[in-house]
Amino acid sequence: MRYELYYWPGMPGRGEFIRLALEDAGADYVDIGNLSERQGGAGAVSEFLHAADLARPHFAPPVLKADDIVISHVANILAFLGPRLGLVPEDESSRLWANGLQLTLTDFAAEIHDTHHPLGPSLYYEEQRETAAKRARIFVQERLSKFLYYFERVLATSAGNGPYLVGSAHSYVDLSLFQVVTGLRYAFPQAMARVEPEVPAVTALVDRVSHRGNIAQYLVSKRRLDFNESGLFRHYPELDG
Amino acid sequence: MRYELYYWPGMPGRGEFIRLALEDAGADYVDIGNLSERQGGAGAVSEFLHAADLARPHFAPPVLKADDIVISHVANILAFLGPRLGLVPEDESSRLWANGLQLTLTDFAAEIHDTHHPLGPSLYYEEQRETAAKRARIFVQERLSKFLYYFERVLATSAGNGPYLVGSAHSYVDLSLFQVVTGLRYAFPQAMARVEPEVPAVTALVDRVSHRGNIAQYLVSKRRLDFNESGLFRHYPELDG
Repeated sequence: MRYELYYWPGMPGRGEFIRLALEDAGADYVDIGNLSERQGGAGAVSEFLHAADLARPHFAPPVLKADDIVISHVANILAFLGPRLGLVPEDESSRLWANGLQLTLTDFAAEIHDTHHPLGPSLYYEEQRETAAKRARIFVQERLSKFLYYFERVLATSAGNGPYLVGSAHSYVDLSLFQVVTGLRYAFPQAMARVEPEVPAVTALVDRVSHRGNIAQYLVSKRRLDFNESGLFRHYPELDG
Repeated sequence: MRYELYYWPGMPGRGEFIRLALEDAGADYVDIGNLSERQGGAGAVSEFLHAADLARPHFAPPVLKADDIVISHVANILAFLGPRLGLVPEDESSRLWANGLQLTLTDFAAEIHDTHHPLGPSLYYEEQRETAAKRARIFVQERLSKFLYYFERVLATSAGNGPYLVGSAHSYVDLSLFQVVTGLRYAFPQAMARVEPEVPAVTALVDRVSHRGNIAQYLVSKRRLDFNESGLFRHYPELDG
């Protein structure tokens, strides 16, 4: 089956959490938003989301289409894909644990986003720079390490099983933590240089993921989009206190 | 089976989404945080979350314990409880749709929270009042109606099936939308008085839920905690522009 991913083109954004799972598993998929305008593009994404006759309209992308099933929200899509792509253990308890970790990453990503959009998503960064500086300072001082220490602690409980968040095997949550840390290194290089030595198991997980066969190939392909200042992870040096 | 809910005492907060599902289904549960300090209370919640030897430490409450299974995050807990309590349809497609809607409510709740905490959760409201006024103004002008119109549109697609978000039957998502709208009426009475006439299907859903047998009894019981200024939905008149 060919999966269809609907997400805005030109940035990794929240779509990247889905791309990483599909790429890692070598799944057949098409990234509709990043096709040419003839074949897809932003227009096709918008049309898919906002068609007036949709029985089940979705609030925002990313949206995944798998035959007749259409799913929105990153954690929801990954909970669906995980078993199908072999990226989560079989047992219910582990799947609930994986989804809980993914939802903590969802909250972390939202706080990262809000460092550059503290007054909300409807204003440009340039219209909220002063407030962004305040929020980013608190984020860097308190929230960044709180979240990273948490994932370090989770990895510590798996000691002896290798650097995996869910039991003793690689999962989609590892791929998502890889993406968050990679994005944080782009957005907050100075802050991350200070905090990363304190979370060695997190760093080891990121290294391990980057060397997985399909991921290593993906990261140097043109399908892997560069971080930029349109996305979730933005590098504004004035926020990296 | 007796479910155990771990959440901070004295406010509805995010725990209320779980309480409503358990109450609606007449499930056997104990609200650990709201027991006396001898039997439970905030100390028991904190201990359960932060015990050093936990194999799977959770980031934040609410956490639900169901025999050997321990689950965090509202949407994750409700996706687990839904089938067990008869609060979501059987088919996979409907369950994914329900979870997607619940995650949109999660995002909505986070934006509501951030109207009084725009610089982050680690400062008191009184330390961020000026920024809160800015964020709340944008929330009331743009985001409040955007989310409510979305749910109105979802209800419109079920025309003829009655006021249900998921197909033609009552679900845990209806209970959660009830809670969000009820909380918004408490926090932003003036703004809601303006926008509610534009979302009649949402209002009808809230009315319907409030008259369900177990919910009607619960709402007048002492287990139903009043909204207050410690929780997710806070009434600060200066933010209700």
